[in-house]
Amino acid sequence: MASEKKLVEAITSMDVDFAQWYTDVVKKAELCDYASVRGCMVIKPAGYAIWENIQKELDRRFKETGVENVYMPMFIPEGLLQKEKDHVEGFAPEVAWVTHGGLEELQERMCVRPTSETLFCDFYAKDIHSYRDLPKLYNQWCSVVRWEKTTRPFLRSREFLWQEGHTAHATAQEAQERTIQMLNVYADFCEEVLAIPVIRGQKTDKEKFAGAEATYTIESLMHDGKALQSGTSHNFGDGFAKAFGIQYAAKDNSLQYVHQTSWGMTTRMIGAIIMVHGDDNGLVLPPRVAPTQVVIVPIQQKKEGVLDKAFELRDMLSGFRVKVDDSDKSPGWKFSESEMRGIPVRVEIGPRDMENGQAVLVRRDTHEKMTVAIEELADRVGELLEQIQKDMLERARTHRDAHTYVAEDLDSFVKTVNEKPGFVKAMWCGCQECEDKIKELTSATSRCMPFEQEQISDKCVCCGKPAVKMVYWGKAY
Amino acid sequence: MASEKKLVEAITSMDVDFAQWYTDVVKKAELCDYASVRGCMVIKPAGYAIWENIQKELDRRFKETGVENVYMPMFIPEGLLQKEKDHVEGFAPEVAWVTHGGLEELQERMCVRPTSETLFCDFYAKDIHSYRDLPKLYNQWCSVVRWEKTTRPFLRSREFLWQEGHTAHATAQEAQERTIQMLNVYADFCEEVLAIPVIRGQKTDKEKFAGAEATYTIESLMHDGKALQSGTSHNFGDGFAKAFGIQYAAKDNSLQYVHQTSWGMTTRMIGAIIMVHGDDNGLVLPPRVAPTQVVIVPIQQKKEGVLDKAFELRDMLSGFRVKVDDSDKSPGWKFSESEMRGIPVRVEIGPRDMENGQAVLVRRDTHEKMTVAIEELADRVGELLEQIQKDMLERARTHRDAHTYVAEDLDSFVKTVNEKPGFVKAMWCGCQECEDKIKELTSATSRCMPFEQEQISDKCVCCGKPAVKMVYWGKAY
Repeated sequence: MASEKKLVEAITSMDVDFAQWYTDVVKKAELCDYASVRGCMVIKPAGYAIWENIQKELDRRFKETGVENVYMPMFIPEGLLQKEKDHVEGFAPEVAWVTHGGLEELQERMCVRPTSETLFCDFYAKDIHSYRDLPKLYNQWCSVVRWEKTTRPFLRSREFLWQEGHTAHATAQEAQERTIQMLNVYADFCEEVLAIPVIRGQKTDKEKFAGAEATYTIESLMHDGKALQSGTSHNFGDGFAKAFGIQYAAKDNSLQYVHQTSWGMTTRMIGAIIMVHGDDNGLVLPPRVAPTQVVIVPIQQKKEGVLDKAFELRDMLSGFRVKVDDSDKSPGWKFSESEMRGIPVRVEIGPRDMENGQAVLVRRDTHEKMTVAIEELADRVGELLEQIQKDMLERARTHRDAHTYVAEDLDSFVKTVNEKPGFVKAMWCGCQECEDKIKELTSATSRCMPFEQEQISDKCVCCGKPAVKMVYWGKAY
Repeated sequence: MASEKKLVEAITSMDVDFAQWYTDVVKKAELCDYASVRGCMVIKPAGYAIWENIQKELDRRFKETGVENVYMPMFIPEGLLQKEKDHVEGFAPEVAWVTHGGLEELQERMCVRPTSETLFCDFYAKDIHSYRDLPKLYNQWCSVVRWEKTTRPFLRSREFLWQEGHTAHATAQEAQERTIQMLNVYADFCEEVLAIPVIRGQKTDKEKFAGAEATYTIESLMHDGKALQSGTSHNFGDGFAKAFGIQYAAKDNSLQYVHQTSWGMTTRMIGAIIMVHGDDNGLVLPPRVAPTQVVIVPIQQKKEGVLDKAFELRDMLSGFRVKVDDSDKSPGWKFSESEMRGIPVRVEIGPRDMENGQAVLVRRDTHEKMTVAIEELADRVGELLEQIQKDMLERARTHRDAHTYVAEDLDSFVKTVNEKPGFVKAMWCGCQECEDKIKELTSATSRCMPFEQEQISDKCVCCGKPAVKMVYWGKAY
């Protein structure tokens, strides 16, 4: 094994240089590549197949809550983008502008959507008339463009794929309930499918979405102790409705403004999977999102019957996403390659195994090896995939909890942030000045005010004034 | 019924004004709407759900042939677009140009992809090294932009959704086989799923794709006798490979150019479904692509037990895409609405039906009514959906064949085109001059040189010189 491992070009160790390790995994697991367009990426088959599984699972969960998919144009006329004051201030500096259509200059330039609130609002203003038209529970899968200065594959690119849900409701309460409902869909999806534990909470006013009344977030912790905002859900109140004139006739015939929400999750979750679960051998995929769950590697495959047996095992495992690696590479190379790609379970089958009526199973996450009787293979693989899924979530949770600290005063806060990568829980007075000061001192930002509040002390960690909220702080991607 | 039909606002009769009928159906069946961006559309839930079913079926068929999905950037730098001479000439006049990113002017402007040959080629040039890297069988689902002057919902819009497959092969033969294979995937999909019969054939040089060596097409006939190009598959030979320098080391270590194909199908197929199957009551959806296959309408739904029974029937029909319409509208209104939306089968259930242990089934396509015993409901609905699917294809084929004419000389050709909407089969000498002349005289274009050739005469219908091919001609969308 040891010598054959070298066959697969080594990746940087994550403890030596986490950023380089990340880039190496993205490249060697063939998830994505840079494109000729600066800051944009080519998502390759291995990366896109993960996104397809994310889409499938999320889409199903959305539809179970009554959401319907639609498609809005990718362009926003400048005048439309400017209708909501906070929103345009937040996005105008980072959009791409189209000025010419064919050979002619446009009368009004258009941006490529950085997000589609304005388009949905424009549509809702025309489409919503009566309380009978509500709620509108629309979502779209598309790509958006934000002209970022520094980019990293999946985490921050000038174009990325996402879904954006946009709903309109008769009442403020209904909008608030939908905002939280979708946040919970994201949180459950992350934990159940991606095996990534999340903190659910509310963003401070400083960190909320441009134009939102309140932004809710799920925050996860990467292996290097940095936080990643993993999904957000916004309650807009009736702010956009007033800016765009979205009114409906209520049952009593009075004219009312709708209340709106939006919520999104993006391809950056592929980056989260890499950074939460990966190791020095490459990607480690949670079984529920893995495009290939089981790889079968024949040993001495040129010996009679071995390849046939490998395909026989594949047919026995047809309830899973399974592949036989019958390429002309050596078994050791195949092992390393399937580890690099993060395939959860490897099945090895050779002449000696066949004689004994057994096969060898190897877990990608722990490298644990076990021998199983072939007639029990399908059952054991099923159990193992379930176990791996569960263990990966638990391991990530243990890691996160072990890297979550508490600070009661500014000195210990600064010391913790500087010395111990992770979340810091600390009390906050509610003033942006303290957020600004903490960011200046440590580069950590408020990640969220968690729904599960704890009373660490009664004073703000920064200014010492009476605290109103316990906040998770951290350096973030 | 007659009086209640008026409840649903009438649509223009297709015989009175086909174009207005089409627009009315698009609007009243709530398939799409115009957006604030001129020439772009908002695809509404009823329209997008059809597209999702098209995607699902096509994607499965692609993957069965080994195709993998990827995602390329939406922008093409101007220099990249210009690398293949014919291609840029074909597309440059109709692209949208991005000139600014954020507040800064770009050093090189970029267009929003009108199609992605250049991006795939740029990627393949970096990613393909050896014969071991071939074939590349990539596809992407995305939206593209072509700055058209006149637009119509689904049929021609400035932005539309599609898939574009791009493959690279070691040999010319393999590329040609893939080109035809994918054309056949499209043809089978249209006939089996959309119930739209197609003519398979090759485009003339005049009508082929910009940069292609050969373009193959499937052509279908709309109810008004106009043709619709429904899917195309292009063989590029090694033209793009030479322009982009896409070479691989062959087994004998010689450096060879790859041979490429591309193939695409778009949201215009929703327009085709409307125009092939629709009638004066609205949309008629083939069961296999219908988002809702069965609607259950309770009669006298306020009477005890009726609604419960309706939901009981829904559960019995859980193998189908089924909905109960329990809104507070009248049954007649519900009938008209479900007809407008094209739902293939309606189930009516009321107190008298319940007494008799039966329900009423109504076919959307023929309006035929039948009474079935409730215990046989699921079986009968299943059979009926199959029958409708089959009958719709046959009806469309009969209509097409009845509107396919033969012309042996120019006079009868012009007369036929002017008087009888449909396809005209006629011989052709192979010269573009004759194509141009026919277009000038009749506005009909060559649709394709069908694979199934017939020898109508031995002379070109236009110039009388020796004929080389039989061609389908027609006025097209």
